[in-house]
Amino acid sequence: MGETKLKSKQKEITLNQIMNMEKQERVHFANSIGGFKSVGLIGTQNKSKLTNLAIVDSIIHIGSNPPLFGMIFRPGVVERHTLENIVETGFYTINHINENIFKQAHQTSARYDREISEFEVSGLNKEYKNNFFAPFVEESQVQLAMEFKEKIELTINNTVLVIGEVKAVYYPEDCLQKDGFLDVEKAESITCSGLDSYHKTIRIDRLSYAKPNQELTSILPL
Amino acid sequence: MGETKLKSKQKEITLNQIMNMEKQERVHFANSIGGFKSVGLIGTQNKSKLTNLAIVDSIIHIGSNPPLFGMIFRPGVVERHTLENIVETGFYTINHINENIFKQAHQTSARYDREISEFEVSGLNKEYKNNFFAPFVEESQVQLAMEFKEKIELTINNTVLVIGEVKAVYYPEDCLQKDGFLDVEKAESITCSGLDSYHKTIRIDRLSYAKPNQELTSILPL
Repeated sequence: MGETKLKSKQKEITLNQIMNMEKQERVHFANSIGGFKSVGLIGTQNKSKLTNLAIVDSIIHIGSNPPLFGMIFRPGVVERHTLENIVETGFYTINHINENIFKQAHQTSARYDREISEFEVSGLNKEYKNNFFAPFVEESQVQLAMEFKEKIELTINNTVLVIGEVKAVYYPEDCLQKDGFLDVEKAESITCSGLDSYHKTIRIDRLSYAKPNQELTSILPL
Repeated sequence: MGETKLKSKQKEITLNQIMNMEKQERVHFANSIGGFKSVGLIGTQNKSKLTNLAIVDSIIHIGSNPPLFGMIFRPGVVERHTLENIVETGFYTINHINENIFKQAHQTSARYDREISEFEVSGLNKEYKNNFFAPFVEESQVQLAMEFKEKIELTINNTVLVIGEVKAVYYPEDCLQKDGFLDVEKAESITCSGLDSYHKTIRIDRLSYAKPNQELTSILPL
């Protein structure tokens, strides 16, 4: 640690070569080159109370005042029901994934028919609380109640950015630090890479606020 | 593993309570509740070849055909130089962070003046190659050459979504799997949570493509 290791031999792949890949190879490659992703289970239901659960690996923090998160929906059957429910009802939940439920979470990405609830087929349990319209995943340790705010069409490739506001957060009591940091590693949340690789984490450090001409220090333990 | 653990006692924080937090506490909280984030170093230079390097923790995969990535820029001094350079010159690099350089990477978030290069003050080395306009981070094991495509104003909170296309990818030869998956854990890329917490990963598994009524299997080793 601290010493510069020799790199493995570095290779180059150009855009032309990427575009010449077989489709599934390109999808694996493009999904993995950006690094680890924010992944969660999106819980929704339509007005007839038919529930839907979808794994989404494109959750992005957009703002803190108020707290806003976005996610990208690609054209396609799997996530379409979730997007329809969000727009139709205005509410959804974001549920963190942990090692105990990562297989059930991955299974929600299968192409089920509209009338089938991924809660039923995955074995994950619905949880309703505090009169919030959308269902949470009971097995999830960190759950966000979200209100739909805006849908932005990304014309460059016909995807949709959905932006929502955090209405409430549910978290394990011992995971919130006194400076406002929610320790998602302690909450056993996991990350993913590519289309199908799931990873636990090991904290390296928390660092002090960076200022010019000032040495960084560890702020652990708080 | 596999068994459902009892949760720690779960607490609720509502939007009202979040909005009543002291500003820094709210920023820590809002930045951490979404889970682990995609983090990288964005390398740019202006037309006068003054370089800039900024850590960005909102990298998001937008598409595979062609490969597109987005990132969110918040209004503010730190990231503004990077955004200006991207729009002015049309090019930037995304460089993965590893344990050997996470402190230098974090230091780039300090508010340096326009004429100061974060490459110089952080001690990270610039690398130019294949006539690409923007500088890479030499210490980074996975590097993306990006062309600016589109800037979308998110009026909901005056942030900007910048979308770019991947022109080339540099990666350690032994990290690319035959199905197109780039093993970023093997490449020692790290993830972050909140504003200042850095994490290594441990793979749990890679899972087969999910289909209705079909058991998931591990696809390791490939």
